[in-house]
Amino acid sequence: MSKLRIGLGVDFHQLVEGRDFWLGGVLVPHHQGALGHSDADVLLHAICDAMLGAAALGDIGTHFPDTDNAYKNIDSKILLAKTTELIAAKGYSVVNVDATLCLQAPKIKPYVPQMQSVIAKLIGVTEEEVSIKATTTEKLGFVGREEGVVAYASALLEKQ
Amino acid sequence: MSKLRIGLGVDFHQLVEGRDFWLGGVLVPHHQGALGHSDADVLLHAICDAMLGAAALGDIGTHFPDTDNAYKNIDSKILLAKTTELIAAKGYSVVNVDATLCLQAPKIKPYVPQMQSVIAKLIGVTEEEVSIKATTTEKLGFVGREEGVVAYASALLEKQ
Amino acid sequence: MSKLRIGLGVDFHQLVEGRDFWLGGVLVPHHQGALGHSDADVLLHAICDAMLGAAALGDIGTHFPDTDNAYKNIDSKILLAKTTELIAAKGYSVVNVDATLCLQAPKIKPYVPQMQSVIAKLIGVTEEEVSIKATTTEKLGFVGREEGVVAYASALLEKQ
Repeated sequence: MSKLRIGLGVDFHQLVEGRDFWLGGVLVPHHQGALGHSDADVLLHAICDAMLGAAALGDIGTHFPDTDNAYKNIDSKILLAKTTELIAAKGYSVVNVDATLCLQAPKIKPYVPQMQSVIAKLIGVTEEEVSIKATTTEKLGFVGREEGVVAYASALLEKQ
Repeated sequence: MSKLRIGLGVDFHQLVEGRDFWLGGVLVPHHQGALGHSDADVLLHAICDAMLGAAALGDIGTHFPDTDNAYKNIDSKILLAKTTELIAAKGYSVVNVDATLCLQAPKIKPYVPQMQSVIAKLIGVTEEEVSIKATTTEKLGFVGREEGVVAYASALLEKQ
Repeated sequence: MSKLRIGLGVDFHQLVEGRDFWLGGVLVPHHQGALGHSDADVLLHAICDAMLGAAALGDIGTHFPDTDNAYKNIDSKILLAKTTELIAAKGYSVVNVDATLCLQAPKIKPYVPQMQSVIAKLIGVTEEEVSIKATTTEKLGFVGREEGVVAYASALLEKQ
């Protein structure tokens, strides 16, 4: 059987005034930020879930429960680093990751290269194996009303 | 060309009072259940669609139309078994499946091992090749209002 | 490392009266059409994004900005052909594509074979490597209210 495995992660967070807005490990200046127990970095959470799913290792809630004070306001870069360790312990490494952020505002394009750099280092690949895309929902739904943000991520892993 | 193929399935169902709530082939105790022509198992439907899509065999509506009385209240485990036969007839077997359930309540974590076991047997892989993840939408949208449930599934197939 | 890469694209458009409804490169008769700067073909846009994402080449907004008059009302088949050139220039070809359209009405099943044929030619594969699936959202959310349409696409690419 193939040594490759695929995973798909999805994450949701509410947007509120007065929170820092962490996306892809980068602080994005905006009048809103994502609400959550951790730093609520929706992109990193979707990537964690895609990697955990591909390795059949449960999900982000299994490993980093939002009822555990250890993860209160935690930097999600730490969660992604731990996720990389978890899949490595099971013999997997990342081939590539492709993520999409659904967000009405602000434009995140200027921050994408930095996100790629941060994520690539954390998951042990080059920046050529990390893709961050963005789309609005054309004002539709809770994303369009700027009440929330959604991220999707797909991950391809390879067993050593 | 590679013998691998990928597929992505998405499924939606309304939640209503007074229906059994079938998820991943397991009956989950809850005051609501999913509405549908079949047993409305949103997780199994998304997995069927991911497998059919990877094999370019149409979708669940093509093979098991909700206008056909043969599928009225049908156990979706039968649909997943038939899907496995359909892809096998085209020379494909499953490498792995990773699915995510978007649901505000209840918590499905206690049922995940049983879901993995049921699905693994139906699609002909070990439980290590079946991943079931869950997330709320943080109260956002129709999932957050407990009006509906969404499932995403990705599947990797290999041609024999 | 594996020569395969995966990508996931998501696209959204509003539905309005008095627009042509282009889906998968085919004109679908309907009283509504998708609103956008280009022809607003949500299926082709999701496929472009899945391919660009797998190759870590940015997204559809990077290459074909909706602020650029060159892309005003453009046929999205041109965008998909350009996307195929972009990934080829980086050494990639398509293994397979699987897309799902979330749309309350009309039924698109009759148009699927034509969409597969159009897309297969544009991305350089056979129709057996192109899958187009469709689902309603069971009347849930903005798709269920016929205010919008969503498409998801997954793409598997191979480096030459």
